[in-house]
Formats: sequence, C-alpha cells, structure tokens
Amino acid sequence: MDRTEPAAGMWDTVPAGAPRRLLIAAVDSFAELGYHGTSTRHIAAGAGMSPAALYVHYRTKAELLFQITMIVHESVLAALLDAVDGVRARPRRMRALAYAFARWHARHHKAARVIQHELAELPPEHFEQAAALRRRTARLFLDEVRDGVAAGEFDVADVPGTARAVMSLGIDVARWYRPEGPRTPEEIGALCAHLTLRMLGAAAE
Amino acid sequence: MDRTEPAAGMWDTVPAGAPRRLLIAAVDSFAELGYHGTSTRHIAAGAGMSPAALYVHYRTKAELLFQITMIVHESVLAALLDAVDGVRARPRRMRALAYAFARWHARHHKAARVIQHELAELPPEHFEQAAALRRRTARLFLDEVRDGVAAGEFDVADVPGTARAVMSLGIDVARWYRPEGPRTPEEIGALCAHLTLRMLGAAAE
Repeated sequence: MDRTEPAAGMWDTVPAGAPRRLLIAAVDSFAELGYHGTSTRHIAAGAGMSPAALYVHYRTKAELLFQITMIVHESVLAALLDAVDGVRARPRRMRALAYAFARWHARHHKAARVIQHELAELPPEHFEQAAALRRRTARLFLDEVRDGVAAGEFDVADVPGTARAVMSLGIDVARWYRPEGPRTPEEIGALCAHLTLRMLGAAAE
Repeated sequence: MDRTEPAAGMWDTVPAGAPRRLLIAAVDSFAELGYHGTSTRHIAAGAGMSPAALYVHYRTKAELLFQITMIVHESVLAALLDAVDGVRARPRRMRALAYAFARWHARHHKAARVIQHELAELPPEHFEQAAALRRRTARLFLDEVRDGVAAGEFDVADVPGTARAVMSLGIDVARWYRPEGPRTPEEIGALCAHLTLRMLGAAAE
C-alpha cells in the first residue's frame, strides 16, 4: 500500500528525470509557500537543479502550475473511469465512484490541495482546459445520481445539490488527511462510499 | 438576507474603523495572493492607509493572520452554539448544527478559505489556540453523533469518521460557494442538514 506522496502512477505521463522532479518540487513549493510565494529559483533548488536548468523544461512558473493542474485533473478522472469500468449495477457503480474519489484524495492530498487553492491563478485559456476536466468528473457523479433516481433506485429531491455533496465528502479528505493518521486511504474510501449510498437513499443501505 | 462578505456580525468584536478595515483588507489580500504573497504594504493599501498606519494597529502580518484566524474560529463556534441553544430533541439539534455550519461556510466563504489554507502559517503557540477552538467545534458534532447512537436514534458504526464526514459537507461549501450562484446560504444549509440526518441513519429521515 502506498500512503506517500506522490502516489504511484500520478506522474507517470511526465518523462522521468528533470521534468518530473521539477513538477514534484513545484507541488511541494506551492503547498508550502503558495503560488505567489514561490519562486522558480525555490522550485529548482527543491529539484536539486539550477534556475537555468528549470527553464530548459518549463518557461514559467505559470506553466508548471498548468502542467500540474492538468496531470492532477486527468489522474482523478482516470481513477473514476477505471473504478466503474465494467461495473453495471447502479449502486455498485456509485459505491465505486465514491470509494475511488475519496481514496484518490487521500493518496494525493498535497497535489489536490495545491490545485484546489491555486486554480484561480491560471490564465483564462488554461483555466478553461482544467475546468473542462472538472466538469467531466462532476458529470460522472451527476449522471450516476440522476440515472439512479430515474430508475427508482435512489431517493433524491435535489439531484445536482446532492451530487455535489457526494463530491464534497471526497474532496474534503484532501484537507484533513495526514499519512500518519489512523485510517488508510482504502478505509476512508469505504466509509465515504457507505455514507454516499445513505445520502442517496439507496435501497440497499 | 446577507450574501455578501463580510457577513453581519463577523467582525463586530473588532473596533470599527482602521483596525477592522485592516483585518478585512488582509482577508482579501490573503485570499487573492496567499499569505506568503501578501505584503503589509498591500494590506494597508487595500484599507486605504499607509504602511506606517498599519503598524499602529498590528505589528506584523503574522499578527493579522492570527487575529483573523481567532475571529473566524470564534464566529463559527458561536454560530453553532447559538443554533442549538435551547434545542433539546436530538435530531433537531443535529439538524440545527448541520444547517448553521453549512450556512456559515457559505456566508463567510472567503474568510473560511483563508484560514483553512493558512493555518499552517501560524507559529506553534498561536496554532494551538486556534486548534483548541477547532477541537471545541468538532466536539459539538462528535458528541451529538455519539449521544444519538447511544440513545438508539442514530445508526452509525464509525462515530468519529462519520462526525468528520458531516463536517466535510459544511466545510466544503466554502470551497465552491459563490454569492452569484443559484442557491442561498439558507438553502445550502437545509440540504446539508437533510443529508446529514440521512448519513446518520436517523429514524425520521
């Protein structure tokens, strides 16, 4: 079990070596000092490199933030799609989504906090690309709740509000989770999945 | 109905005029630029004052953050205590807590985001004072869940985990809430209260 950050797989799409080390150092620096409080010099030092070497790979601090944001959003979306791949029964799909979402936010708590807090720093065109991924993620939850209500399996009056509340359970894990705490990401995922089915008034709960 | 920030009452304990204006300007600046990205010069400018005038009231940026943190934590605790004052029936108490907590996080979303994100910036002795208030707030939820389980009114296997999840519903409101959105803080509070009783397996839901 991997309870450290970065969790396995998160940065696999980035070439190993300097490009990946710089992104991970940037996450650490943004988490510690905030985006505005971070210099490219500090990021380069965190990766054991010179500022000049950083510019070979990333032209600006803003580009680092954008790359991180896209990788993180793609990672959570992929985790959700993977969780429901081949799962047909609706309560099981919902349970799988809620489990995977909360577990992901525990495993990747530091990167999740950074992109949540710094999203407003992206320039409009980059913000829109990140927002498109966020909408796809939100749509997975929304569709699942809506379909379950239509099929009579969930008892929900406010579909969009409840779908967002389901997401809140998972997203807030990134705020409070500490690797040294008593619960594993898997235990947190299981609890959130259970509470999610209760919120939806699923017959099985 | 007050949907603006700062919401009524939040800063009432601070003397009107410069001391209060500076705290509100500091919240704006921390929210926009982060704690490390904010200068006392920027805060003073936001309050329409000179840097020298700021130092008459607050010696350091750290003192501003500490004052804000304490006022915010006292505000949310007071809102919760007020919500259950004189309420005896247990499901009604829980509903009142969840309602007040979510509504507070909508009304005070900007200040809530600042103190959530910047808590780690406080020096140890100030962090401990803030943490003590946070523990009192968390204790209100924990005791309510535990007592309800003991009385057979709630059906909860994991009491601390579920109490924290109940809080997540409210806390996460500060992340996504926008005053221009379609829901009022009161509507958000009502939805969170409803979902909370479902999470607890309350008989009435």
